[in-house]
Amino acid sequence: MSVTAAKGFAAAGIAAGIKENGNPDLALVVNNGPRRAAAGVFTSNRVKAAPVLWSEQVLKSGQVSAVVLNSGGANACTGPQGFQDTHATAEKAAEVLGRGAIEIAVCSTGLIGVLLPMDKLLPGVETAAASLSEHGGEKAAIAIKTTDTVHKTSVVTKDGWTVGGMAKGAGMLAPGLATMLVVLTTDAALESDVLDRALRAATHTTFDRVDSDGCMSTNDTVLLLASGSSGTTPQYEEFAEAVRQVCDDLGRQLIGDAEGASKDIKVEVINAATEDDAVEVGRSIARNNLLKCALHGEDPNWGRVLSAIGTTRAAFEPDQLNVAINGVWVCKNGSVGEDRELVDMRYREVHIVADLAAGAETATIWTNDLTADYVHENSAYSS
Amino acid sequence: MSVTAAKGFAAAGIAAGIKENGNPDLALVVNNGPRRAAAGVFTSNRVKAAPVLWSEQVLKSGQVSAVVLNSGGANACTGPQGFQDTHATAEKAAEVLGRGAIEIAVCSTGLIGVLLPMDKLLPGVETAAASLSEHGGEKAAIAIKTTDTVHKTSVVTKDGWTVGGMAKGAGMLAPGLATMLVVLTTDAALESDVLDRALRAATHTTFDRVDSDGCMSTNDTVLLLASGSSGTTPQYEEFAEAVRQVCDDLGRQLIGDAEGASKDIKVEVINAATEDDAVEVGRSIARNNLLKCALHGEDPNWGRVLSAIGTTRAAFEPDQLNVAINGVWVCKNGSVGEDRELVDMRYREVHIVADLAAGAETATIWTNDLTADYVHENSAYSS
Repeated sequence: MSVTAAKGFAAAGIAAGIKENGNPDLALVVNNGPRRAAAGVFTSNRVKAAPVLWSEQVLKSGQVSAVVLNSGGANACTGPQGFQDTHATAEKAAEVLGRGAIEIAVCSTGLIGVLLPMDKLLPGVETAAASLSEHGGEKAAIAIKTTDTVHKTSVVTKDGWTVGGMAKGAGMLAPGLATMLVVLTTDAALESDVLDRALRAATHTTFDRVDSDGCMSTNDTVLLLASGSSGTTPQYEEFAEAVRQVCDDLGRQLIGDAEGASKDIKVEVINAATEDDAVEVGRSIARNNLLKCALHGEDPNWGRVLSAIGTTRAAFEPDQLNVAINGVWVCKNGSVGEDRELVDMRYREVHIVADLAAGAETATIWTNDLTADYVHENSAYSS
Repeated sequence: MSVTAAKGFAAAGIAAGIKENGNPDLALVVNNGPRRAAAGVFTSNRVKAAPVLWSEQVLKSGQVSAVVLNSGGANACTGPQGFQDTHATAEKAAEVLGRGAIEIAVCSTGLIGVLLPMDKLLPGVETAAASLSEHGGEKAAIAIKTTDTVHKTSVVTKDGWTVGGMAKGAGMLAPGLATMLVVLTTDAALESDVLDRALRAATHTTFDRVDSDGCMSTNDTVLLLASGSSGTTPQYEEFAEAVRQVCDDLGRQLIGDAEGASKDIKVEVINAATEDDAVEVGRSIARNNLLKCALHGEDPNWGRVLSAIGTTRAAFEPDQLNVAINGVWVCKNGSVGEDRELVDMRYREVHIVADLAAGAETATIWTNDLTADYVHENSAYSS
């Protein structure tokens, strides 16, 4: 159901010819109102793609009428021409939809450093507009895939209102958002400041804690559009929780489809002095290539967990650290704990618990193992 | 020649049976004086192995009589028993050499989280002491290998005095020193404070800028021992430069033998506002898994260089960044530059220049590509 699960939205996904293999590569999501409040969160990478620079400006008004998304090219590091191309995309969508260009957000994903084929993209916007449908969410989700093997959608329906969304992302997955495009829609009647608060709270503990390969993208964008067509204004807490659930579900789907991965790894840091400490330790563990290789080999190598914890500034004493892998406390008090032979590593999900014994805060980071397939896929991507 | 190139030193390397495959695994380096001044630099990982904790205490006196080094086990995360084992090793060496235990440094390398087989190690110390030789440097260098495919030694001889050394390290190579053990010796007549200053200056721009896989070890140790037996006291600058040359040479040998690597990558950051900025940017590029995969595939993917620069706090403007790969300026002013097809990627060495256009400072970080062989070697290491 994706972005058309909520009432008041139409979407389309088509093949515009941007991808040389002829796969779908252009999506359009339109908010038919009555409201068009919106919020957005963007990559914290300082090298931002042209569509991110444009969409950040669009979101300043708190209003988004439509989103144009393309795969097959990131339009990043493309200079003034790249920005002009994004602007022209918004102008074209504005023209065919009868809206203002400054209310059209644009998202792009694909290879960095290549200009988009505008002779294919602009006619594609017209084709997409002509095929808009209230059942088009699935096609839109398919059209934004790059190396994704499956399209990702999620929906939460509450009493009279709905939050739904789509996501793409499979590589360059790291915080400050993962490399991904996400469009969420709701028919709840809410203003942009409420959407912004709920979206930031949700991404802070979901997408921001997905870290497949430590590589932060130039194009990450998460948008939340509200049509108000349900006529219902939910309580903030209930709405924020629904947004968080959809983000959490989509984030898990991203990790589950990460390039070359054979394991989904949940790194849970407990008893930290602060939440920041917990996140720092979780990220350090999640980014340790040696550990990620070991887990790929189904080796519960807890020494590499301790080695990763030791590089952080978090509060802890080395001789009080405890580590569990899949429920077995293989490290106790910074030293050898239960028999590592007891750890069952056969399943795709691996659960690491790092106990800092320094407080009461916690955080969970999701990552993947490091595999020969990841190396292969990313050494061949642009060639 | 290794650690016995300088006069006043004897060394040995033997198979004590610590490694199950019967390869050499125990080295002994003895300073026969007349002086025994020394300096040491240790891992900045907060989870430190027992031998690091011990040797840090030894170095406080500025005097080292001998170093016992073992491969086949890191004695890290081994609790109070691990520390007792290191202490017993120093005591045994003191006994057989007729020195004080507090002047015996100990270094260990191998798997984390496993106690050393002391029933083999202690008799090994006796055997090693019995085979000490002024020509034993090569054997000592061989005995400290773990996954190293070759042993690493380097010597610089000046007017009447010499600096020589040995190193081991092939994985978990990252700053705050690489995962490695290094023993340097000199027959120059210098006090420990001069040795300390020269050693810290040298490691700061050599070992500290070797970053094969971003993983910082629990056991890194670099020791510099001075016998004074040349009777010569060189000028500080000349001595420091000789130490730097030996460290630089050994560091390059570490990168050249990194686990699974097929490329040695020199990341040179130029025109940075500060040296710290240059190092931060260099490390960020050197640690980007996607770039390291691309370079493995001989793909000059400069977009991933920019993406890595964008995650740093360094001073730069995105539209003023320039990147050269093997002499071709593939990125100019943050956008497409010279034709990437011109880049010749056939050779083992890859040279990346990142021009921040923000000042006059520079730094060079050495790293490796990320390969399926790295994944294989590190998913099978402990099993």
